[in-house]
Amino acid sequence: MRNLKLTLAYDGTDFCGWQVQPDAASIQGTLASAIGRISGEKVLPQGSGRTDAGVHALAQVATFQTESVIPSGNFVIALNDILPPSIRVLKVNEVPPEFHARKSARAKTYRYRILRDAICPPFLARLVWHYPYPLDEDAMRQAGAIIEGEHDFTSFAAVDPEKTIDHEGHRSAAFTAGSGTQRKESNMRTIFSSGWRRDGSELIYEVRGNGFLHHMVRNLVGTFLLVGKGTLKAHDMIRILEAKDRSAAGATAPASGLYLVSVEY
Amino acid sequence: MRNLKLTLAYDGTDFCGWQVQPDAASIQGTLASAIGRISGEKVLPQGSGRTDAGVHALAQVATFQTESVIPSGNFVIALNDILPPSIRVLKVNEVPPEFHARKSARAKTYRYRILRDAICPPFLARLVWHYPYPLDEDAMRQAGAIIEGEHDFTSFAAVDPEKTIDHEGHRSAAFTAGSGTQRKESNMRTIFSSGWRRDGSELIYEVRGNGFLHHMVRNLVGTFLLVGKGTLKAHDMIRILEAKDRSAAGATAPASGLYLVSVEY
Repeated sequence: MRNLKLTLAYDGTDFCGWQVQPDAASIQGTLASAIGRISGEKVLPQGSGRTDAGVHALAQVATFQTESVIPSGNFVIALNDILPPSIRVLKVNEVPPEFHARKSARAKTYRYRILRDAICPPFLARLVWHYPYPLDEDAMRQAGAIIEGEHDFTSFAAVDPEKTIDHEGHRSAAFTAGSGTQRKESNMRTIFSSGWRRDGSELIYEVRGNGFLHHMVRNLVGTFLLVGKGTLKAHDMIRILEAKDRSAAGATAPASGLYLVSVEY
Repeated sequence: MRNLKLTLAYDGTDFCGWQVQPDAASIQGTLASAIGRISGEKVLPQGSGRTDAGVHALAQVATFQTESVIPSGNFVIALNDILPPSIRVLKVNEVPPEFHARKSARAKTYRYRILRDAICPPFLARLVWHYPYPLDEDAMRQAGAIIEGEHDFTSFAAVDPEKTIDHEGHRSAAFTAGSGTQRKESNMRTIFSSGWRRDGSELIYEVRGNGFLHHMVRNLVGTFLLVGKGTLKAHDMIRILEAKDRSAAGATAPASGLYLVSVEY
């Protein structure tokens, strides 16, 4: 049995997200059926974490086991022949049996793109959040730096059963329901870097951490936006972290601006 | 009555083309209904020419007449509020009554983007033609220059009733059918510049002329590609022009790579 690691990019606009769902096109499900057509096996590739509907990936990582002897390079070509152009397999590598896309992940990087122009070109509409109104970008830069380090990110976690999407201690809603243990997951995460920068007409947020809660990056961006609008001050980020209460933070920023950039192992 | 000139950009992927059609989403129809919601008038904006399904525009021009007194700048904002993000109005200008988007056009520029990388990023799939196979780009550059000047482009015109899409002598299929004249349109066009260049991973064709026949740019690109593959030599372009026969030229390149860049008046 070979353990294969896929690195893939996708435009998430037309998908219901990473996770397979019965009546909607998911990245995981689309990938599973493409693998099935090549190897004849029924496999569900395991991602480094879920991405929500509309969220993109530059280098998502997934693993699956196969009896197939097809060389890795041929897998890339065959998968890209079958997959829609909105999903591309960039690499296939054989990895040791103990390697797991989610459990072995050490760090992840996400990027969020805000377009500041008055009019959003139609070619970018799926790929950014268009926000043309005034923002204090210096204040946003200060706020970005404040969340670096180890913190409890409860205030930035979606209040739902999928709260923990990519930590080692992750349990799916179904698993937890069946286990009877209802163990409370930790919302402690370490952010190695967190910063805003300008790239032409775009204001870009990039964050690298050891794990992210469900909606965490989009909730951070929504809160940084309140700082940019002057509703909050940069140092309010400390108070919001300490509140450990979702209602203390800002709204969830739209999915279209978010990219999973890379996963480190 | 005011005569308003719209400059608009669109991602043509999800449209049946410029021209209004009964059961499909067209740029013209979508625009007409947005104008109707603002001015309360039933108008069909006239474009500088049609673009086919999947073809994009960076600055298409259209005109329409209105009794509305809404200032031009407010028209931009109101239209963009109503239109889908895949169509953006960039400018609205009031023009003299004799100005007509198609009949007044002096020159148009089209661009065609070919992505040469082995794998096409999902974010570009709608916006380029992905062609990763070997091409003699120098030969293509030579072939591009040969078509400059005044020529009969019959060999590069679609064999259909919409052959002439943007020349002053244009008649729609419906008009011709009703007129009983069946006057033969001239396929003579003047190409002011025609050239291939490299921009990173993209091979880009740009052509500026006084008018273009239906499918002309895509048929030129399909023929230049045969030169790139070595099936034809650059100087074969002369023979193909002289043949005045569609079957002498190459296949129609995909719509996804084509952009109407600008219209000059």
